Amino acid sequence: MNIGLDMMGGDFAPLEAVKGIKLLREKLQHSQAASSGGQRSPVKDIELTLFGDEAVINQMLAENGVDKAGIHVVHTTQVIDMHEHPTKAFREKQDSSIAVGFGYLAKGLTDAFISAGNTGAMMVGSLFSIKAIEGIQRPTIGAYMPRENGQLGWLLDAGINSDCKPENLVQFALLGSIFAEQVLNIPNPKVGLINIGEEEGKGNLLAQAAYPLLKESTGINFIGNIEGRDVFLDKSDVMICDGFTGNVILKLAESIHGLAQRRNIKDEFFDMFEFEQYGGVPVLGVNKPVIIGHGISHAKAFMNMINIAAKMIEKDVIGMIKARL
Amino acid sequence: MNIGLDMMGGDFAPLEAVKGIKLLREKLQHSQAASSGGQRSPVKDIELTLFGDEAVINQMLAENGVDKAGIHVVHTTQVIDMHEHPTKAFREKQDSSIAVGFGYLAKGLTDAFISAGNTGAMMVGSLFSIKAIEGIQRPTIGAYMPRENGQLGWLLDAGINSDCKPENLVQFALLGSIFAEQVLNIPNPKVGLINIGEEEGKGNLLAQAAYPLLKESTGINFIGNIEGRDVFLDKSDVMICDGFTGNVILKLAESIHGLAQRRNIKDEFFDMFEFEQYGGVPVLGVNKPVIIGHGISHAKAFMNMINIAAKMIEKDVIGMIKARL
Repeated sequence: MNIGLDMMGGDFAPLEAVKGIKLLREKLQHSQAASSGGQRSPVKDIELTLFGDEAVINQMLAENGVDKAGIHVVHTTQVIDMHEHPTKAFREKQDSSIAVGFGYLAKGLTDAFISAGNTGAMMVGSLFSIKAIEGIQRPTIGAYMPRENGQLGWLLDAGINSDCKPENLVQFALLGSIFAEQVLNIPNPKVGLINIGEEEGKGNLLAQAAYPLLKESTGINFIGNIEGRDVFLDKSDVMICDGFTGNVILKLAESIHGLAQRRNIKDEFFDMFEFEQYGGVPVLGVNKPVIIGHGISHAKAFMNMINIAAKMIEKDVIGMIKARL
Repeated sequence: MNIGLDMMGGDFAPLEAVKGIKLLREKLQHSQAASSGGQRSPVKDIELTLFGDEAVINQMLAENGVDKAGIHVVHTTQVIDMHEHPTKAFREKQDSSIAVGFGYLAKGLTDAFISAGNTGAMMVGSLFSIKAIEGIQRPTIGAYMPRENGQLGWLLDAGINSDCKPENLVQFALLGSIFAEQVLNIPNPKVGLINIGEEEGKGNLLAQAAYPLLKESTGINFIGNIEGRDVFLDKSDVMICDGFTGNVILKLAESIHGLAQRRNIKDEFFDMFEFEQYGGVPVLGVNKPVIIGHGISHAKAFMNMINIAAKMIEKDVIGMIKARL
């Protein structure tokens, strides 16, 4: 498999991306040495295509002692900054690392594309270059949710679709279930509808209308409504809501780590609220694996994003989504 | 002032209500002894009218050594249970402590009414017996929000109005500002619109439409959008949103205390998430002070509810709302 990586995206580009590649290589070598030739690591055969300033990238790879075997560098001359208007920048900066990266993905020269750059431009690229899967009304982005059981939950939509129709929520449930099962390794994930009461019939108009659709929906394990108090518990694995509610929950959850740190609280569970460690999140519902990372991504986040992309390719998550629509 | 108290509401009725009265009396005596006859405690002259089973109440008052001076007991024969249908129960159980309590309030025999009983029945009573203030479209319930600065914030709507119009949010801002200023002692409280981005124009359709109305609104100190990450900070004092979003935030916040406890975290700030200590919340936008408490209210919560009601009467919060509409 060949994974495309935007080297110019994120606050610490391209150094942290290079360090992430180094970290990945070290882990792979370690796991290869550990396994006695038997079980194959899912991400062993990863080739990487790096988009950005070739001279800088090559120099940094050399300086950090990264062997270039299996690494292709594609030189790009432009960068889409974090605060540029996504659509405008994506159209006008045709030689940007993001635009060229999506070009390679669309042509099948790479199998996935990753960036910690401008989220909006990544969404525009996903929707215009590789497009939504036929039948998917609204591609979505989710968020990992720390849970007391130590296993991450998966919340979606996390902010891309702030106003939703009931049918959108049903598709989020399917997309989220497949991702949770294949990538987060949660068998038959429990789907909960985020709501303000336990019983069917509770909630705002959206939740009231979505509940019966989710209940009738085959191919998901719908367990009913969950409330705010259930988000960090294991009541459900996949938590469904509109992007407004989801984004408020995500940002509130993100703030807990800083609060705990400032209070000098050291605790395994509260450490899970350090969202940076999780790398990026996939755009679910588009035709190829696309991973969007946080601007502040460091080496570990980049490594994890490559691993997520590799897992999505290996498990053929996109094919599975198409089959189950 | 004469404050009505439902003695039959809550999981530990009527004992914890009796204990709450005792606690209040002790605090008042203490503050009277401490003050050298000068400054008057705002809640010194509280008469109480207690609604419920007279024999049981009298016995418990005696057993707990509560002097009956200034206490009137009104015998009622029915109780609205926590899980009864609010409208049906309120109509049919005309001799319930809640229905009789509202009757006294409507007739002006009491100046406020407090219950830790069936929330829905308390809302029905508020809307049917004492009614919304003229011009108020949707009365609302708020929630205290723990903040890192040690001072409570005020979030509304907390779950009564799950679907809102932009104009509702503007009224919530006014109602919340007056409550925060007069009862929470926050001068010129900063009002933040809960949203998923900082800039004007961000958000779902509701937030996009509410922002310009809030900006133009006089009599409130609107500071713009706040995000999920700002809820526990002091970016704003009054946080405005629809009741769906607010209820998710409230219940998520409520769950943090249990998580911290189970992790053996002892910390002043995380202790603030023990919501029980705050007593109840007022129904804002109706013609008299009505306070609704949590079902699990203990003595301290009952004492605090009486204090909140007393403060609302003393500061004439209702008059102020009418004047500023």
